[in-house]
Amino acid sequence: MTSVKEKLFTQVAQPKESSGSKVTIVGVGQVGMACAFSILTQNVSSEIVLIDVVADKLKGEMMDLQHGLTFMRNVRVNASTDYAATMNSKLCIVTAGARQKEGESRLDLVQRNTDIFKGIIPKLIQHSPDTILLMSAIQVCGYSYMLDILTYVAWKLSGLPKNRVIGSGTNLDSSRFRFLMSERVNVAPNSCHGWIIGEHGDTSVPVWSGVNIAGVRLRDVDPTIGTEQDKEGWKSLHKQVVQSAYEVIKLKGYTSWAIGLSVATLAQAILRNGGNIHAVSTLVTGQHGVDKEVFLSLPCVLGENGVTHIVHQLLTDDERAMLQLSANLMHEVQSKLQM
Amino acid sequence: MTSVKEKLFTQVAQPKESSGSKVTIVGVGQVGMACAFSILTQNVSSEIVLIDVVADKLKGEMMDLQHGLTFMRNVRVNASTDYAATMNSKLCIVTAGARQKEGESRLDLVQRNTDIFKGIIPKLIQHSPDTILLMSAIQVCGYSYMLDILTYVAWKLSGLPKNRVIGSGTNLDSSRFRFLMSERVNVAPNSCHGWIIGEHGDTSVPVWSGVNIAGVRLRDVDPTIGTEQDKEGWKSLHKQVVQSAYEVIKLKGYTSWAIGLSVATLAQAILRNGGNIHAVSTLVTGQHGVDKEVFLSLPCVLGENGVTHIVHQLLTDDERAMLQLSANLMHEVQSKLQM
Amino acid sequence: MTSVKEKLFTQVAQPKESSGSKVTIVGVGQVGMACAFSILTQNVSSEIVLIDVVADKLKGEMMDLQHGLTFMRNVRVNASTDYAATMNSKLCIVTAGARQKEGESRLDLVQRNTDIFKGIIPKLIQHSPDTILLMSAIQVCGYSYMLDILTYVAWKLSGLPKNRVIGSGTNLDSSRFRFLMSERVNVAPNSCHGWIIGEHGDTSVPVWSGVNIAGVRLRDVDPTIGTEQDKEGWKSLHKQVVQSAYEVIKLKGYTSWAIGLSVATLAQAILRNGGNIHAVSTLVTGQHGVDKEVFLSLPCVLGENGVTHIVHQLLTDDERAMLQLSANLMHEVQSKLQM
Amino acid sequence: MTSVKEKLFTQVAQPKESSGSKVTIVGVGQVGMACAFSILTQNVSSEIVLIDVVADKLKGEMMDLQHGLTFMRNVRVNASTDYAATMNSKLCIVTAGARQKEGESRLDLVQRNTDIFKGIIPKLIQHSPDTILLMSAIQVCGYSYMLDILTYVAWKLSGLPKNRVIGSGTNLDSSRFRFLMSERVNVAPNSCHGWIIGEHGDTSVPVWSGVNIAGVRLRDVDPTIGTEQDKEGWKSLHKQVVQSAYEVIKLKGYTSWAIGLSVATLAQAILRNGGNIHAVSTLVTGQHGVDKEVFLSLPCVLGENGVTHIVHQLLTDDERAMLQLSANLMHEVQSKLQM
Repeated sequence: MTSVKEKLFTQVAQPKESSGSKVTIVGVGQVGMACAFSILTQNVSSEIVLIDVVADKLKGEMMDLQHGLTFMRNVRVNASTDYAATMNSKLCIVTAGARQKEGESRLDLVQRNTDIFKGIIPKLIQHSPDTILLMSAIQVCGYSYMLDILTYVAWKLSGLPKNRVIGSGTNLDSSRFRFLMSERVNVAPNSCHGWIIGEHGDTSVPVWSGVNIAGVRLRDVDPTIGTEQDKEGWKSLHKQVVQSAYEVIKLKGYTSWAIGLSVATLAQAILRNGGNIHAVSTLVTGQHGVDKEVFLSLPCVLGENGVTHIVHQLLTDDERAMLQLSANLMHEVQSKLQM
Repeated sequence: MTSVKEKLFTQVAQPKESSGSKVTIVGVGQVGMACAFSILTQNVSSEIVLIDVVADKLKGEMMDLQHGLTFMRNVRVNASTDYAATMNSKLCIVTAGARQKEGESRLDLVQRNTDIFKGIIPKLIQHSPDTILLMSAIQVCGYSYMLDILTYVAWKLSGLPKNRVIGSGTNLDSSRFRFLMSERVNVAPNSCHGWIIGEHGDTSVPVWSGVNIAGVRLRDVDPTIGTEQDKEGWKSLHKQVVQSAYEVIKLKGYTSWAIGLSVATLAQAILRNGGNIHAVSTLVTGQHGVDKEVFLSLPCVLGENGVTHIVHQLLTDDERAMLQLSANLMHEVQSKLQM
Repeated sequence: MTSVKEKLFTQVAQPKESSGSKVTIVGVGQVGMACAFSILTQNVSSEIVLIDVVADKLKGEMMDLQHGLTFMRNVRVNASTDYAATMNSKLCIVTAGARQKEGESRLDLVQRNTDIFKGIIPKLIQHSPDTILLMSAIQVCGYSYMLDILTYVAWKLSGLPKNRVIGSGTNLDSSRFRFLMSERVNVAPNSCHGWIIGEHGDTSVPVWSGVNIAGVRLRDVDPTIGTEQDKEGWKSLHKQVVQSAYEVIKLKGYTSWAIGLSVATLAQAILRNGGNIHAVSTLVTGQHGVDKEVFLSLPCVLGENGVTHIVHQLLTDDERAMLQLSANLMHEVQSKLQM
Repeated sequence: MTSVKEKLFTQVAQPKESSGSKVTIVGVGQVGMACAFSILTQNVSSEIVLIDVVADKLKGEMMDLQHGLTFMRNVRVNASTDYAATMNSKLCIVTAGARQKEGESRLDLVQRNTDIFKGIIPKLIQHSPDTILLMSAIQVCGYSYMLDILTYVAWKLSGLPKNRVIGSGTNLDSSRFRFLMSERVNVAPNSCHGWIIGEHGDTSVPVWSGVNIAGVRLRDVDPTIGTEQDKEGWKSLHKQVVQSAYEVIKLKGYTSWAIGLSVATLAQAILRNGGNIHAVSTLVTGQHGVDKEVFLSLPCVLGENGVTHIVHQLLTDDERAMLQLSANLMHEVQSKLQM
C-alpha cells in the first residue's frame, strides 16, 4: 500500500543529514539551554545537538525547543545521551561540570571536574576530530579560577592544537563592564568600550587605559579614572562586575541569559569566520611575561580556525603582575591534577 | 567640579524615556522569561519592562538580561514591582497565575486566579489605557480550559474592547502539530500547514480539512486521514499535541521555550501591525454556533489594533459541536465566578 | 623593523580563508546585486564572491558593499574576473545572460545564452565540484521560457546530478500571487497561500485548488474562483502576476528587489539544509505526464543536497495539459540547440 | 451577494492604518532605494512610504518591493507622489537632490538644491510635525560640502529644533575607514575603531588619537601613525576614504549599498531609541571653537529624540583648525543663499 508520504512526494535525492554548521551543546542546565536558545533565535547555527546524562530532562528540553521550531526558520534540534549524535560538529560547547560540595577544597573540585571531563572531551573529539571546543563559564562560587583551569584541562584531554580550545572567559565580564558604563553615561552599551582580561572571576583585570567612548579615552578626560584617587568612583564598576555573578546567583539562583548571549556571540564569530575580537580564555604562555602553561583571557581574533591572533594590549606593571600572579596560582593547582 | 560625563558630552536635547514599542511582561517565571528572551533576541521590541511581586527574583532576572545587552542592538530592559514602570506600554503580556493546589476544584482554581488578576489587570490598564493585553498560557495540569476562561476574566476586568484582549491560545498547539507533521514527512515545520482551534488543552480541535502541504490537502490524498479508519494513524498527531504539554512538564518540570517563541511571534504581528493570521483565543460569540460569551481560539488576523478579523473555517458538524461543548462548559464555570 | 600589525598581534594559527558557506554570484547587474545584497543583509551567508567580465563595474560593486560591512556582522565580500576566486563555493548563483536583440528568434537567443553559459558553468564546476547551481531569472521580454530552458542547459553543461541544478522558477511568481491575494483580503502576504507552477513566465499555471487562507480553500468558499464564471474576477490575479514583470520593467527598466529576495530565500533553504518547500525549476520528467527531459517549476523540498523531493500536487486535466504543452515546446527548442 | 472576503472573515475591529514606526523616503534613485531595501531587509521598520516626482519609476520600485514581501515578515510598502501618504512618519529620509550641471558654480548648485528642498521639507513637516529629518548623502562630484550645507538648509526650512534634523554625514566615511583598517590588520571591520569627523567629503578629519583595536591606541603602538613621518603609510587610509566615493562613482556610476546600510543603521538607532553613537552632521555652533551656525559631523548620541548629545573628542589644534575652516567656508556659502 502506498503511504500518504509516498503519494505526496517523489524522492529526487537523499536529504543531507547535517548542515555543515552543526553545534553540539553538552549539558542542558540553565546555562546550556540559554546557549542553545540564544544560538537558535539569533540564527547562529541551523542545527543543534544537545547532550546530557539525564535522559528525561534532556528529552524534555529537546521537545520544548522542537515545539517552537515553526516560529523560526531553517533550524533543527536533536538530543541524545549518545555522543554518536554529535558526529561532525563544527563547534562543541561544553557547559557541564560539577559545583562545589560543602567543604570541598579547590583542588578536589578541579579534580572532580577533570574526571567528569574525561568522560566528555575524548568522546567529542572522537566523533568530531576537526571541531572547536568552546568551554562555557561554570559557576562555582568561592573558587573563581575554575573556567580557565578547566579550559586548560579540556585542551590537554582533547589533544587539539591550542587555537581550537577556547574558554568563554571574560567576554561576559567585559559585557557587564560595558553595561555598567552605559548606565553611568546613558548611552548604548555597545557604544561603550572597555576590556576585562585575565581570570574569569574575582581577580579579573580591568584595562583602564583602553576604556573609551567614541575613541575618547576616559583616562584622557580624567587621569584618575579607575584609581583610588578618582572622586567619581569609576573603580567601583569593576567591583560590581566581579560581584555581578554572585549577586545574580543570590537573587535568582543561577546566571543564564547573559552567558548564553556571550557564548552565542563567540559561536557566531567562529562559525561565520568573522575575525571579530573578543576577550576569551586562551593559552597565554609568553604573553605579558606569563611563563606558565595556563589559560587566561586576552582579546583574541576569532574565526573558523578558532583563536588566530592574540591582541597585545599595553598593560601597566600592576596589570602584568596581576596576570602573572593568576597564572602562577593556576599553574600550581594544575600541577597537582591527575589527568 | 565638572564630571567625566559632563566633559564627555554636550547635551543637545533630552533623551526620550520610552521607544514607542514598549512591552510589559507580568511574571518572571520560566514562561515570562522565555517570552522576554524571545522578544529581545528576535528584535521584536526594543524595550521591555518586567513586573513581579518577588522583588529578588525580579531583580536577578533583570540584571542577567542587562549583562548581555552588549551582545544585542538597541534594547533596554527594566524591572519593577511598581506598575508605574509600565506606563504607556503598547503591549502587556501576562504570564502570572497560580497553579492548582492538591484537591482544589476547577472553580476554586479559576476563582483564585481571578483574584490574582484583580491585582494585575486594572493596574496595567490604569498606566497603559491604550494597550493590548496578551494572556499567555498558564500551565495548570488537570484542568485544561484555564487559559481561555482567564482571558475572558482579563477582558472583563480590563474594560477593554474585545479586539484588544487576546489569549495565546492554540497558536502553540498548532505549532506542535506542524512540527509533528514535519517529522512524519521530513520537510520543514513551516512548510507544513495545519490548524488546531478551540480550547488550549485537552479538548482542542484539529481541523483536518485544512491540513496541507504546498496546498495539497492530505484529505485529498487519503480521505481517512485523521479519522479512526486511517491505517497510518495520523489521528495520533493530535493526541501527541494534547499530551505534549503534559510530557514536557513531566520530563523537565515546566514548558518555556515553545510558549516563549509563540508569544514573541504574536507580539511581533501586533507591534508591527502585520496582519498575520494566528490561532489565538478571542471572543467567539456568534462564531460556529457558539451563543455564549466565551473566549476560544480561532484563526485571527492580528495587528496594532489587536484581533481585527476572525477567519471563518469550514468546520464539520462534529468540530462545531466540540467548540459549542467547550463553550458551554466554560460558560458554566464563568457564571459562578465572583468578579 | 616591526610593523604596527606585528606589534599589535601575536599569531596563534593561520585564519581560514573561507567560511564553509561561500556563495558565488555570477553577474553584477541589477539582479545579481539585489541577490548579493539580500543575502548579506539577511545573514544568509557570511561570504560572497562576485564574478563578472566587466572588471570596472565589478570592482565598484565590491567596494560599495565592502564600505558598508561595518554595519553588518561577520560578512566578507570579494570579487574577481577569475573563477579561481570561487573555489569551494557551496552555492553558485548565475544571474548572467544576454537579452534579446531586435528581431532575434527565440532559438537564436537561447543558443547565444547557451554559448555564454559554456564560458561560465564549466569553470564554476571546475573550482567547486560539490556546488549547487541556482539559476536566477533572466529577463528576456517576449520569450518567456528562457529560464527553464537555460536551467536545462546549465544542467547539461555542468554534468551535475539533477538535484543540484535548480532554477529560481516560479518562486517569484508565487510570491507575486500571494501579495496580490493579500491586497484583496487585507492580510499579511505570508498568511496567504497559493502556488504558481510550470514555466516562469506567460504560460505559468496557478493551482487554484491549493489557494487557501488558514487552511480554508477559496474554492470551497466559492467554487468558481479562478474560472471565467467567477464574478469577483480572482482569475485576474494570475494575469497580473504574468504582467507584473513586464509592468515593472516598463516602469523602472528592470526588476531586481523581488527576484533578489526570492533567490536569497532559496539560498537560505539550501545553505541551512532547511527542507523548506518552494516552487523551483527542476527536471520534471515523469511528473504529471511530462515525458520529455525538461525543467519546469513544481513545489520542491530544498536542502543542502539541492532538490530532494518534488511535491505531487493534484492537478486538473487542464493544468496537466498546460504543463505538457510547455514541456513539448521547450523540448523542441532544446533539441535544436548546439551544446 | 456576499463576497469571498466577507465569507472568509468576520470583522472584529478596524485595522490600524499605520504601525507607529512609519518611515518616509523621499527620492527613489539608487540611494533612496538602497536605503529602503536596507531598512526592509534588516527589520528596521515595518512600514515604508516612498515619495518621488517621477510617478512611473516610483510605481515600479514600489511594485518590485511589494512582490518580495512574502519573503519578509510584517512589512508594508506604499508609494505616492502626494505627501499626504507620509502622514505621521516617525522618520523622514531625504535622498532627493540635483547633481551639478557642467560649469555650475557651487553657490548656484546649493541654491538650486535649496529651491528643490522648498518643495519637499515643508510638505514633510506639514504631515508629520513630530518627525525627525535624516538627510542622506547627495553625490555631487566636485563640491564636497553639499550634504552639510543642505542639512542646514533643511533645518532652516523645517523650523524643527536642531536635535531633530540630522545629516548622515561622516558615518559612512568612518565605516570606510574602519573597513580599510580591517583590510590592513585582517580582523573584522566592526572590531576596528576610528572616527572621521567634519565635512562629509574631501576635507573630512580623521581623529587619529581615537583609532584603536581592543582599546589599544595605534598612536601608542607607533606615535607617527597618521602623520607624514609614518613609514607604513597609515595616513593613506584617510586619502582612500576621501577618494572612495569618487572611485566607486567612476567604476559603477554611483554609490548606493554602503550609504543605504549607513542610513539604515542611523534609522535603527533613532527608531529604537538606541542611544548609539554615530558620526552624523549636526549643528556644531560652540563645539571645538566653531562660532558659525553650521552643520558638521561629530560623534552624536542618537535616539527617538534625534541627537541628544554630542561627544566632545579631544582634538589637536590642527584638527580644530580644520573644522573651523570648513565651518567658515560653509557659512560664507550659506550667507548668500536665498531661503
